[in-house]
Amino acid sequence: MGPVRLLLLLVLVAAAAAGVGEAVYIPYNTSAGMVPGKLNVHVVPHTHDDVGWLKTVDQYYVGSNNSIQGACVQNVLDSLIPALLKDENRKFIYVEQAFFQRWWRNQNDMIKDTVKGLISAGRLELINGGMCMHDEAAVHYIDMIDQTTLGHRFIKEEFGQIPRIGWQIDPFGHSAVQAYLLGAEVGFDAFYFFRIDYQDRDTRKGTKELEVIWRGSKTFGSSADIFAGIFPQNYEPPPGGFYFEVDDDSPVVQDDPLLFDYNVEERVNDFVAAALAQDGRVNALYSTPSIYTDAKYAANEPWPLKTNDFFPYADNPNAYWSGYFTSRPALKRYVRMMSGYYLAARQLEFFKGRRNSGLTTDYLGDALALAQHHDAVTGTEKQHVANDYAKRLSIGYTQAQDLVSTSLGCLTESGSKSRCSSPTTKFSQCLLLNITYCPPSEMDFSNGKSLVVLVYNSLGWKREDVLRVPVSSDSIVVHDSEGREIESQLLPIADASLNLRDKHVKAYLGTSPNAKPKYWLSFPVSVPPLGFITYLVSNTKKSAITSFTNKFTNVKIEANFEQKYKYYIGQDGNGSDPQASGAYIFRPNGTVPIKTNDQITRVYKEKDYVETEFIVGPIPIDDGNGKEIATEIITNMVTNKTFYTDSSGRDFIKRIRDYRSEWKIEVHQPIAGNYYPVNLGIYLEDGGKELSILVDRSVGGSSIKDGQIELMLHRRLLHDDGRGVAEALNETVCLDGHCEGLVIQGKYYLKFDPQGEGAKWRRTFGQEIYSPLLLAFSEQDGGNWVNSHIPKYSAMDPTYKLPDNVALLTLQAGEHKDLSSLASVDLKKVFPDNKIGKIIETSLSANQERVAMEKKRLKWKVEGAPAKENVVRGGPVDPSKLTVELGPMEIRTFIVSLDHNISGKQLL
Amino acid sequence: MGPVRLLLLLVLVAAAAAGVGEAVYIPYNTSAGMVPGKLNVHVVPHTHDDVGWLKTVDQYYVGSNNSIQGACVQNVLDSLIPALLKDENRKFIYVEQAFFQRWWRNQNDMIKDTVKGLISAGRLELINGGMCMHDEAAVHYIDMIDQTTLGHRFIKEEFGQIPRIGWQIDPFGHSAVQAYLLGAEVGFDAFYFFRIDYQDRDTRKGTKELEVIWRGSKTFGSSADIFAGIFPQNYEPPPGGFYFEVDDDSPVVQDDPLLFDYNVEERVNDFVAAALAQDGRVNALYSTPSIYTDAKYAANEPWPLKTNDFFPYADNPNAYWSGYFTSRPALKRYVRMMSGYYLAARQLEFFKGRRNSGLTTDYLGDALALAQHHDAVTGTEKQHVANDYAKRLSIGYTQAQDLVSTSLGCLTESGSKSRCSSPTTKFSQCLLLNITYCPPSEMDFSNGKSLVVLVYNSLGWKREDVLRVPVSSDSIVVHDSEGREIESQLLPIADASLNLRDKHVKAYLGTSPNAKPKYWLSFPVSVPPLGFITYLVSNTKKSAITSFTNKFTNVKIEANFEQKYKYYIGQDGNGSDPQASGAYIFRPNGTVPIKTNDQITRVYKEKDYVETEFIVGPIPIDDGNGKEIATEIITNMVTNKTFYTDSSGRDFIKRIRDYRSEWKIEVHQPIAGNYYPVNLGIYLEDGGKELSILVDRSVGGSSIKDGQIELMLHRRLLHDDGRGVAEALNETVCLDGHCEGLVIQGKYYLKFDPQGEGAKWRRTFGQEIYSPLLLAFSEQDGGNWVNSHIPKYSAMDPTYKLPDNVALLTLQAGEHKDLSSLASVDLKKVFPDNKIGKIIETSLSANQERVAMEKKRLKWKVEGAPAKENVVRGGPVDPSKLTVELGPMEIRTFIVSLDHNISGKQLL
Repeated sequence: MGPVRLLLLLVLVAAAAAGVGEAVYIPYNTSAGMVPGKLNVHVVPHTHDDVGWLKTVDQYYVGSNNSIQGACVQNVLDSLIPALLKDENRKFIYVEQAFFQRWWRNQNDMIKDTVKGLISAGRLELINGGMCMHDEAAVHYIDMIDQTTLGHRFIKEEFGQIPRIGWQIDPFGHSAVQAYLLGAEVGFDAFYFFRIDYQDRDTRKGTKELEVIWRGSKTFGSSADIFAGIFPQNYEPPPGGFYFEVDDDSPVVQDDPLLFDYNVEERVNDFVAAALAQDGRVNALYSTPSIYTDAKYAANEPWPLKTNDFFPYADNPNAYWSGYFTSRPALKRYVRMMSGYYLAARQLEFFKGRRNSGLTTDYLGDALALAQHHDAVTGTEKQHVANDYAKRLSIGYTQAQDLVSTSLGCLTESGSKSRCSSPTTKFSQCLLLNITYCPPSEMDFSNGKSLVVLVYNSLGWKREDVLRVPVSSDSIVVHDSEGREIESQLLPIADASLNLRDKHVKAYLGTSPNAKPKYWLSFPVSVPPLGFITYLVSNTKKSAITSFTNKFTNVKIEANFEQKYKYYIGQDGNGSDPQASGAYIFRPNGTVPIKTNDQITRVYKEKDYVETEFIVGPIPIDDGNGKEIATEIITNMVTNKTFYTDSSGRDFIKRIRDYRSEWKIEVHQPIAGNYYPVNLGIYLEDGGKELSILVDRSVGGSSIKDGQIELMLHRRLLHDDGRGVAEALNETVCLDGHCEGLVIQGKYYLKFDPQGEGAKWRRTFGQEIYSPLLLAFSEQDGGNWVNSHIPKYSAMDPTYKLPDNVALLTLQAGEHKDLSSLASVDLKKVFPDNKIGKIIETSLSANQERVAMEKKRLKWKVEGAPAKENVVRGGPVDPSKLTVELGPMEIRTFIVSLDHNISGKQLL
Repeated sequence: MGPVRLLLLLVLVAAAAAGVGEAVYIPYNTSAGMVPGKLNVHVVPHTHDDVGWLKTVDQYYVGSNNSIQGACVQNVLDSLIPALLKDENRKFIYVEQAFFQRWWRNQNDMIKDTVKGLISAGRLELINGGMCMHDEAAVHYIDMIDQTTLGHRFIKEEFGQIPRIGWQIDPFGHSAVQAYLLGAEVGFDAFYFFRIDYQDRDTRKGTKELEVIWRGSKTFGSSADIFAGIFPQNYEPPPGGFYFEVDDDSPVVQDDPLLFDYNVEERVNDFVAAALAQDGRVNALYSTPSIYTDAKYAANEPWPLKTNDFFPYADNPNAYWSGYFTSRPALKRYVRMMSGYYLAARQLEFFKGRRNSGLTTDYLGDALALAQHHDAVTGTEKQHVANDYAKRLSIGYTQAQDLVSTSLGCLTESGSKSRCSSPTTKFSQCLLLNITYCPPSEMDFSNGKSLVVLVYNSLGWKREDVLRVPVSSDSIVVHDSEGREIESQLLPIADASLNLRDKHVKAYLGTSPNAKPKYWLSFPVSVPPLGFITYLVSNTKKSAITSFTNKFTNVKIEANFEQKYKYYIGQDGNGSDPQASGAYIFRPNGTVPIKTNDQITRVYKEKDYVETEFIVGPIPIDDGNGKEIATEIITNMVTNKTFYTDSSGRDFIKRIRDYRSEWKIEVHQPIAGNYYPVNLGIYLEDGGKELSILVDRSVGGSSIKDGQIELMLHRRLLHDDGRGVAEALNETVCLDGHCEGLVIQGKYYLKFDPQGEGAKWRRTFGQEIYSPLLLAFSEQDGGNWVNSHIPKYSAMDPTYKLPDNVALLTLQAGEHKDLSSLASVDLKKVFPDNKIGKIIETSLSANQERVAMEKKRLKWKVEGAPAKENVVRGGPVDPSKLTVELGPMEIRTFIVSLDHNISGKQLL
């Protein structure tokens, strides 16, 4: 949210009192630096260029579709350079690398040299440095890192610069992960942001705690502290009309005394007035957040401490921005699917040997980066812009899919050793498996052909799972790569699923599927870490369907619970308070239970969790009401208002209903105000057991009553909520000229554990949800697949596995008694096929050496006595041993030189 | 009307067929020139930057008040220069010098040098070249010349350039004077424009007569022909989305293949499609109207002939833009008053010796130039913009008034010989005399002081007139400068006038007047040409009021006539055709007679015309209807649908009701479609006599019935007419928190003459209306004014007078049997006090020598046999004789070197 802008920010306040008002040209004194003894006002002209919102990113860039919004980012950049050249004291910060890169590649060498000079002089500072100003509620931390790394890498390569400052001035609330992981661990010295709850803001204004040290991680404690500056009012400068966006109402500084409305004196007076609200004599200077940060640091003073996060955000008593935690659930799922796929595809790109031309994952990486923008995955953009993000993901997926198929072809033909680009073996994949559409698996076995199912595991540990693929035959047998028959099952396909399939395949592909599959073929698989295994599916005389029993539901459930659905009526904004429920804001106006018989709940043999598949929609609106559909899980647990939700998919944070840990809340919205973003999961505990729910995408969730958890699954609303998007969140799918409400299909996973034991499942299985097994299909004509192909592969040493508490993630301090401890990873076993040369540990975004980063990073003082801390971090890597230690929750990033390639790898 | 824009114009049509569509960067082939055998498409990027409309001129320039309209002209100019530098084939034309000059004076030498290079290379062409794109209906030709000269002088001095092309693409109709005087006589080779009646346009499209030779003057015939190109549709390029204004809907050319919506191929196809509508193979080139004109000329072909003008303009059957002929009658009068005052003030500036600093008429000249813009004096701007024009005029007047007072002080003390800047004698002037407010003349005579009334005549002939000034005494005597008592009269002041006075003095000055005057003192004056005379007004014992009789009404009127008032109900736009009557459009919905007793009609002794003073307003709107007030003069003359109105205050053009001379009209609006602009006057003739009416400002007028003339005097409307201004024309005056409708006061003058004799009065008295006697007041304390001051002055030789048919104007060919002939002016007599050195005849805007202009001006061919012409123009000036010959209607401009100064003087 928020338009393309070029505005004047007063990070502090005050005025240049140089002589003004004479009717002659004013030679502004712009050369001032900071002056001791005065209040120094840092004037920071900056961008806030939405990477899509009311227009698509490219429309914003080129300035098209201006009837929606007059905005053209290339003009901002074009005009910026001469403006900086005109006065050597002027400074500017540019934030969004997606735009900057678009512009940069069209500049000639002369402009590029000029810009490089401005950047190296610190006059043009590339700040934040990611492709976009990412959201912090609906975004997974892996996506945050990826999109930031993409931008940082460019800045490093092109300019040799390392961004020092976080700048998240528009996201609708702020996560702890942002502060410590995307702040401190990226090497930022400070983090400036806005959009915090209006009550919190008012409290902080009173106590002068808008500038704090934010300690976002319990595990890392003070080692990941960051100086955090909260804007007093949105991303706006202090009141008084200093909002210099194109087309804004603020009076421009009209400094030509020969024209009417010359207002330099008046504007200076306004500036002084705004400054005097902070008291004292003032001095103004062109500045950047870096200069400001250094000045703050030089004061050598202690700052108040802030822990946890800034969710949920409300800008008014009845305006909690907790609707967007769920808005556009299909887009949110698409982003999450692509995120996991991207991780797997990059591994396969690495195994095959990355090339900079031809097939790469770059497009998908770029599309995913854009999708993390705070008006992208949030669902708060206009419909056509949401379509644009989806289109980019689709193009990126198509390219990545070809890469994955090629890489798998190469790996099955020859392993990872040689460069291979055109394997004979062709693999297909099934993006639409979620709607029961997979032509390769629906093949006709009657002519003696078999289906080859390759299962790739992108995690660092061996995985057991149960696959489901649609098949057209009712007599099927499955063999593993060693020729052993695998127990399999044919399950009926629900009518609801087939209906979804027919409609959406046509909507997605433009043509209806030729045939209907008859069954789900279901069979268990066991896949090596960072590797694949192959299964063969073929015809058999005996009909497998007879074996369909309830044999996979053999599990003890330790607690009684009830699963229900309900909907909230979206406030229509016609009451005395005209705030409607909309894309941003959740404002329920009554709750109605939903009776349903269609819920699909699966409990798998040897899996001790419940998988619930839901299909929600089309949400009826013929009664004139928008509706927001939630599922609730009701238990008799005594939870004392307390529940836990994850922070950007990583740490879990304790939430207490109708309560904020650092300020006193006045409750106006007892439901919306207790909703929190859920990326990984939500859990309850009652001293005896834990109830955990994990999700397949970001949603809003809460515990509105003790013992209860609810997740908002889908929203369809008929009114705009007045935050600029100017569209109702009313998603439809149109086919053959007929449109109906969007249908959402998804899953959540539920598990009861003894108290203290849930963390392991939440971490491990949560990672499996994020990184599902990747399926690829081929055909065997005749029976010698195994002879001509490598049927099983692991990039890791087959004798090695990552420690239980490492895998591709680590565990939070105190989260699990055994697993929250130092672990070590033997890199030689992880990369057995490659000779490891140089290894350099870097910052999280890989743009600087970790040692250098830690050395130069500012160490801030916190008010009060230092807390006793027991921070465990891994030590330096001994190049001869190549063993990496990982402390709890630690993420370490290395640039590793390998014999066949130089590539980066992150251990998560 | 019309927003700030930067658009692509296709003057002809067609496409560059260079290879496009490859997904690589396109090296556009922009170097093409014209190609023989193809249809050459001239692509002309140009400005159309309104010098005020929805925002004030300065707001447009600096980009403030953008909530009304996103527009910032300095950005256009800032971005233009690098854009031109990027490709040496690009070209641009800049039109409005008011903006260009604002920008220019803020540029550094580097930019200035760059711009000079671009201009001298013909890549940036300053076209039209006036301060604004002036209106052509409500603007007096003297103002047209002045505002054009201001711009041309700057272009000549700064760049050594002479604009070649007229470019009036937005004014709402076009005058003959524009074509021949502001076109040919300025030295333009061609004139491009739009806004002509939709029926005329459609006819011309059919007959391919959108490009013509326009012969706007009967008198000058082919010697003032100009090539005239009419745009096919507004100022727009051909259909197909080539309208590249900021914020417009036309798809921008998105030429970055790495971004979405890359559309070069599609846009080229659109371009080709638009081109193919003109047939043939095409070739596109960056161009300017100059290049285009030269290409047209090189074809050496004859063109259809167009005579007369393009009024009134309609863009739809019920949308005649004849409302703006009258809209904002107070502003129109203010502009006209200032125009006449400016002429007088420049003479006095010249007599005193012009200085470039200190007091000048420059500000008033600049304010007047802006006020000629086609959304200024037209009344089609927003209210706050109208206020801005008035404010500029007020500031300009104040400066000019001080200059005039100083100059008169100097002249009365020492004549024109010496440089004088601070005379002892102080003169006051009375701008508010029209509302009976003149503190100097209302002085108290009881202490023996006398009032000195200086009367200045800015015309070249001696004038007899009757003055009226308010006085507070009832016993007054007037003496001339030779001590002779002058017959005077005290006349009662109408209550209506006193009410107007009290209210408007407070509204204008902020305080109420202290006292009320008792009478109008009226006395006849006789003033030398280009000079002044002084009268002394003092107390007497005998009461002059007793002499009040009807003695000034001794005149024979040759015809019976009736003067009436009526109003039209303004169409509210709620009918099936939603076109309302508004600032632009006159669309009456019924006529209602008005009964009035308040009309003041004066007939002066020895004056054979009738002066009618009207006070109209506040127009009541409590019935919910907007109203448009007209006066009508009804006679029994048999006029056969025919009447005559002036063209921009100069030529008279024959009008026939419900008829157009060059195309067949379908009549939808029998009233609005017969309205024409009246700047000077309107007349009827019936073979025996003429009825002439002259006006004090521009108004709309017509003869709706035979024998009748009507003038629209005031308009108050409640609906916007949908042409962008988005305000109803509902002018109010607010005082003490109470607002009421604007009151208009004004005069018109009526005379009957024998057939063929009216022209002399229309010309001579018309010029006297334009240039009223200028009054200045001083006090005499004691009785020796005459001894210490020069009481009478003429800049001309006292023994010389301009010929009857010259004065400061000439007469139209055939207009008057005796006066329409060659006249000669003896410059030595006009400037007796100055030695005349060099004399150079120039173009009308004084930016080039006439000889050079005539030599290089393109001579166009007209279709058909050449007409027999008898064009009389004066011959070259013999430097030894210094006698200037003037043909009928001729305006010759000379730069004359005088001994005490070098200055310019126009003989009109």
